[in-house]
Amino acid sequence: MSSAAASKLRGYVSLAGDLRSGKTTPRAYLDETLQRIAALDPTIGAFVTLNKDGAIKAADASTARWKAGKPLSPVDGMPVAVKDIIETADMPTGQGSPMWEGTVTRRDAASVHALREAGAVIIGKTTTTEFAATHPYHKTQNPYDGTRTPGGSSSGSAAAVGSGMVPVGLGTQVVGSILRPASFCGAVGYKPSYGAINRSGSYDHLSQSAHGGIAATLADIWATLRAIADRAGGDPGHVGLTGDVDFGKRAKPARFAVLETGGWGVTSEGARKAFEAAREKLAKAGIELKSRRDDADIEAAERAMKDAQPLSLAINAWEGRWPLNTYADLDANKLSEGARGRLKQSETMTQKDFAGLLAQRKAARDAFAKVTGRYDACVTLGACGAAPVGLGSTGNTAMNVAASLLGCPAITIPLLEDENMPLGLQLLGGTDRDVELMTIAAWVAGDAFGRNDLVGSTG
Amino acid sequence: MSSAAASKLRGYVSLAGDLRSGKTTPRAYLDETLQRIAALDPTIGAFVTLNKDGAIKAADASTARWKAGKPLSPVDGMPVAVKDIIETADMPTGQGSPMWEGTVTRRDAASVHALREAGAVIIGKTTTTEFAATHPYHKTQNPYDGTRTPGGSSSGSAAAVGSGMVPVGLGTQVVGSILRPASFCGAVGYKPSYGAINRSGSYDHLSQSAHGGIAATLADIWATLRAIADRAGGDPGHVGLTGDVDFGKRAKPARFAVLETGGWGVTSEGARKAFEAAREKLAKAGIELKSRRDDADIEAAERAMKDAQPLSLAINAWEGRWPLNTYADLDANKLSEGARGRLKQSETMTQKDFAGLLAQRKAARDAFAKVTGRYDACVTLGACGAAPVGLGSTGNTAMNVAASLLGCPAITIPLLEDENMPLGLQLLGGTDRDVELMTIAAWVAGDAFGRNDLVGSTG
Repeated sequence: MSSAAASKLRGYVSLAGDLRSGKTTPRAYLDETLQRIAALDPTIGAFVTLNKDGAIKAADASTARWKAGKPLSPVDGMPVAVKDIIETADMPTGQGSPMWEGTVTRRDAASVHALREAGAVIIGKTTTTEFAATHPYHKTQNPYDGTRTPGGSSSGSAAAVGSGMVPVGLGTQVVGSILRPASFCGAVGYKPSYGAINRSGSYDHLSQSAHGGIAATLADIWATLRAIADRAGGDPGHVGLTGDVDFGKRAKPARFAVLETGGWGVTSEGARKAFEAAREKLAKAGIELKSRRDDADIEAAERAMKDAQPLSLAINAWEGRWPLNTYADLDANKLSEGARGRLKQSETMTQKDFAGLLAQRKAARDAFAKVTGRYDACVTLGACGAAPVGLGSTGNTAMNVAASLLGCPAITIPLLEDENMPLGLQLLGGTDRDVELMTIAAWVAGDAFGRNDLVGSTG
Repeated sequence: MSSAAASKLRGYVSLAGDLRSGKTTPRAYLDETLQRIAALDPTIGAFVTLNKDGAIKAADASTARWKAGKPLSPVDGMPVAVKDIIETADMPTGQGSPMWEGTVTRRDAASVHALREAGAVIIGKTTTTEFAATHPYHKTQNPYDGTRTPGGSSSGSAAAVGSGMVPVGLGTQVVGSILRPASFCGAVGYKPSYGAINRSGSYDHLSQSAHGGIAATLADIWATLRAIADRAGGDPGHVGLTGDVDFGKRAKPARFAVLETGGWGVTSEGARKAFEAAREKLAKAGIELKSRRDDADIEAAERAMKDAQPLSLAINAWEGRWPLNTYADLDANKLSEGARGRLKQSETMTQKDFAGLLAQRKAARDAFAKVTGRYDACVTLGACGAAPVGLGSTGNTAMNVAASLLGCPAITIPLLEDENMPLGLQLLGGTDRDVELMTIAAWVAGDAFGRNDLVGSTG
């Protein structure tokens, strides 16, 4: 299956040489993209809206720039799919909700505007669960097996990338909404440090939510998010993602902390076996690996993040009381049962409860910082196992929520398998040390696993 | 003029006894409110939209609750005006811009929803400068002199409160948008600590922006903002405004730091004289007052906040690049010259520049924290002087920007005069120590200045 997975993914920024020489063009790349979408999307259902005419116009303009030797950025001409909770001036933003489907906001989110400035081709809007939470309003299929979920909430972006329709899809994560679908769909997933990418103009305002994306290669997602941060910065008050990654020259890391996180107890047997094999491979490649059994700091961090899932859900419930309360006033029947349940939960909570939750989160962050102060990165599974069968749920977030709670960067790389389906290997790094983590991810994929196709280059 | 000013302001929460006894009712209060609006607003122009029917319905429901002895909160039945950059489900949100005038968002902002839950009567939307920045799209008049500005950007809320139309208007401040108009219009203005009031659903996303309000009394604004925070918390990741103020029992503070801030050099002669008199009054009341000439920590803080105005404007320019860039795409002709200028400024800036600005801000905050660690509060002018003549500008922000830059709480109380117009005395406190500052403000107004009418009580 791995080779099938690899053949599906289509990188973009590594084509820079061919784009410069004219061997290929953004328009040719787009034409292939549109063909794939026409062939695959009627079944997979990754897109809510497609702006074919706008994309062709943008790709032609990009083609002219590359021809003139004046691309605006490494992502000039790259087709990018946008999760449908992020505003776009030329397409409605539906938030995966019958209440907001078709809503025209007349503006681009900061991230989308920055990508247009960088020359990227905003090709369409991808499905999301309702309000980027749990309910799969659209029944998007997993590109590897139509009976299985693509994961969520960034469902469409993961399915579109995993099926090779587009090289990059923007996503957001407040619990496990980037890492999980990326793992399920055989793609790279990257959730940056909290605040690294400007969320303005997107319906994800919670204090654990971060913009990021799902991509064919590490280089593609890095180039995309750096192009955004260069032009739109991070969230207000945050400088945002900075620095450069040399994907060709990768120093070997020395020490990894192996994390179980709160999710280990619910991983599948196949996923555990795959992870043990990955651990051996990393050890053979010369990485010193320590776990909670070897190191008191790791043990303390594991204990502090044990309840990451209920803790994060409680934080999100309080912070998500609005807008669910005003949406319920508008038409409670158009809210899913899950949304109504979260609203109900929030109504039993107080500021004092929330202060307690924030203190718990702070303790977990402090414990984790001790580990990342001593290890180059942390390694764990990208998901609890293969994408589960059925489109009524987007799967368990247990292996993904730690990075959201901690506010740290996390990257999943489709290096493993479970049930003959893709599975990610997840790396977590120190908060705001994204460059370091991305460089390590490139070493793991390229050097330890020999998968340079998943690394890509910035041309 | 002071007595005229006092007679204009109309408090609400101090009426609790009468509301409980039935001597007055929310409906009676609303009827008087509507009469005042009908009489005054055709000239003053504080309101963009009025929801008379909705307000009557809400006031009647509140009247029934008070009659049954079951008010939902101290602000049950209180008419509240809402600055028109804050979303309301029953009224459009125009952002003081011809581009967005009449925009229906179908939802309440978190603050507005919380106030409705607390029983408050959301009576209408008040004028704001374009995008809560500088350009006065609506030509609202100062209630004390129609040839003068009410200040901005919370222009309408200040004018509506200062003229006695309503007891409270919600406002927002990112530079000087609450404190200045409150000072100009003879009202209490309170900008809480950064993050203390949930801004979700409001078009003020910058890292120095805070929700707050303008009110007839200290008790009114405190009750209003606590009612919001109780139900909607602070910004995501912040617990929000907590604690109780006993407006009747006020401990005497011991030491104030007198601040010039970057604004002292541009204050009017009358304002300086008024401030010197206030300083003497405080000294006579037994407060130990120290200034930059007496204390090295104060001197260091003064130096660190000397450039608060250009520094804040640069931070806001970078953070405000979006949405101005996507708005310019939509129709640049509908942006003011000021907005186009800010956008242009932002386009010359980089992430590195922004990192430098944040470092400067951090240094100012650290220097200020040393002062608030040793003094009960800081005292300065509420504005550079009386509201200037002319409706084309909303006046100089120089005396107001410090609190925005520092993220600290600040309260202006209409205790002074300049040019026979109202002028505020401003108190600044330690960040997140809002209860302490509000208690001190009550002592200053009630005990040092004998103006219990501006204190009010929570009934």
